Amino acid sequence: MKLLYPTSLKLDVDSLQGFSVELFPYDVKTPIPEEHTDAEGLITWTNTADNLKDAAARLKNLKWIQSLAAGPNDVLNAGFDTSKIIVTTGSGLHDHTVAEHALGLLLNAARRFYEMRDYQLQGKWPGHLGGPQPDRPAGAFTTLRDARVLVWGFGNIAKALTPHLRGLGAHVKGVARHQGVRDGVEVYAEDKLPDLLPETDALVMILPGSDATNNALNADRLRLLPKHAWVVNVGRGTAVDEDALVDALEHGDIGGAALDVFVTEPLPESSRLWKAPNVVVSPHAAGGRPQAAEELIAYNLRRYRAGQSLKNVI
Amino acid sequence: MKLLYPTSLKLDVDSLQGFSVELFPYDVKTPIPEEHTDAEGLITWTNTADNLKDAAARLKNLKWIQSLAAGPNDVLNAGFDTSKIIVTTGSGLHDHTVAEHALGLLLNAARRFYEMRDYQLQGKWPGHLGGPQPDRPAGAFTTLRDARVLVWGFGNIAKALTPHLRGLGAHVKGVARHQGVRDGVEVYAEDKLPDLLPETDALVMILPGSDATNNALNADRLRLLPKHAWVVNVGRGTAVDEDALVDALEHGDIGGAALDVFVTEPLPESSRLWKAPNVVVSPHAAGGRPQAAEELIAYNLRRYRAGQSLKNVI
Repeated sequence: MKLLYPTSLKLDVDSLQGFSVELFPYDVKTPIPEEHTDAEGLITWTNTADNLKDAAARLKNLKWIQSLAAGPNDVLNAGFDTSKIIVTTGSGLHDHTVAEHALGLLLNAARRFYEMRDYQLQGKWPGHLGGPQPDRPAGAFTTLRDARVLVWGFGNIAKALTPHLRGLGAHVKGVARHQGVRDGVEVYAEDKLPDLLPETDALVMILPGSDATNNALNADRLRLLPKHAWVVNVGRGTAVDEDALVDALEHGDIGGAALDVFVTEPLPESSRLWKAPNVVVSPHAAGGRPQAAEELIAYNLRRYRAGQSLKNVI
Repeated sequence: MKLLYPTSLKLDVDSLQGFSVELFPYDVKTPIPEEHTDAEGLITWTNTADNLKDAAARLKNLKWIQSLAAGPNDVLNAGFDTSKIIVTTGSGLHDHTVAEHALGLLLNAARRFYEMRDYQLQGKWPGHLGGPQPDRPAGAFTTLRDARVLVWGFGNIAKALTPHLRGLGAHVKGVARHQGVRDGVEVYAEDKLPDLLPETDALVMILPGSDATNNALNADRLRLLPKHAWVVNVGRGTAVDEDALVDALEHGDIGGAALDVFVTEPLPESSRLWKAPNVVVSPHAAGGRPQAAEELIAYNLRRYRAGQSLKNVI
């Protein structure tokens, strides 16, 4: 079989040899050359929409697409015949990087680095943020120690994030479609949100983008959070009702929001989020660096060749 | 015996009962009342210089001072007769908070939250910091994963910080006056700095303030760091030659500096640090919140009453 791999990231191609497969590199920004339209497998990463649309029309022999993105909406929207083509995601390749970024955003919020920066740019010492401080005062999110962190969307990334939060002394609970204990964390179904949100100091959103998660954090749910609670979103922007969020921030109904994802990216100049109080805008920077992609590709390649079911089938 | 405790923080005084001791609160900003000048023990926290100077002159019966600061320079400079008075520090009470802040500063540097903030304030999307990125590129500090972190000053705070760094995948080494393995970390003596600094992505300074540590990070040592290396200082400002640091930053000889402490605090308006490239100014905010102070006080109080040696004697 012929497998095409992208030149948009550095892959250790040697580690993909040995499966009776012909490997060819391709450019993700131009149409795939005629001699490779017989490919059976395609690995995608940051392909242009035109490249994917063209591939969907011309790669008649295609049977498997391995995306390296956690949520390969680009592939799903390109017109591939998914009744004949298996699509597997890059879920798991971004766990470390997204978890690290989420942790950074939480500490940015608790330690108010963004506010310190505003003072620094004016050459002013933010004395109210330093010196002797009350230790873990009620009604404030000032540290992860003893903070109540609720992680909504409890998959691989949440499992990678939780040990860091617990290591710093946070009390972690989860919310997901199905309840249960995962990696030692009590995960509740969404119908428990009315009980959970009022007891949350920091809400970490790691929901995928889909019709089911659209505006999951809406005005009603924002209203249930304590006035000091922070919202951190490293999932998909569509999971938060941005207008309701800005309203909550402007009215002081929540403590702040550190956002890595937005309904529209780049965030439009006209967005109210830019200047809303206590908002941290991060430019979809949490992931974007697949790690150990070769391991996933080789694993799925071997299983594909053996006629076995693949990992991360969409 | 009579022991005076400060009202400048919330203490669980009940947990200090039972040692045949009379406990009295006092205000750290005014002279100690005449009826308490017979105190044998004094607990200090954020006392004014005048309060301490006055206490040194008037508390003739004083035999023990328990400071809650990690480095009680205020007490040592107040004129107490330390040939007759035991001074014990609050070392250990600030480990969690300072470690968390140091971790936050490291992530702020690696994830460039400060730069994102500059863009946000202008309503601009910092696209170069988001989207697809190279994974752990050589010659850059973009993540703690596989980052080489050197912690200079390897006491309690370093020991509290290291597990978080290792949990995120960093390779941690230490530098201290004496070499050895501490909590599983290889700690080198300072004479090894010429070998260690060139292989450092992030240098975390946790040195106490003293003549011996004055300008420990000087121009010669800064020159040994890679061009992408960050300096994080949560120890004492005097341990860094600030002029040499600004020179290194302005010449692009190092990657950046996240500083919680300064030679003069508040940082003077005239300081070159405010506007030097890639500097993060944090207003001595890492600690300032003694945790579990009662445990240390009770421990030392019991030992004092029993005639045993105290913990954290200076």
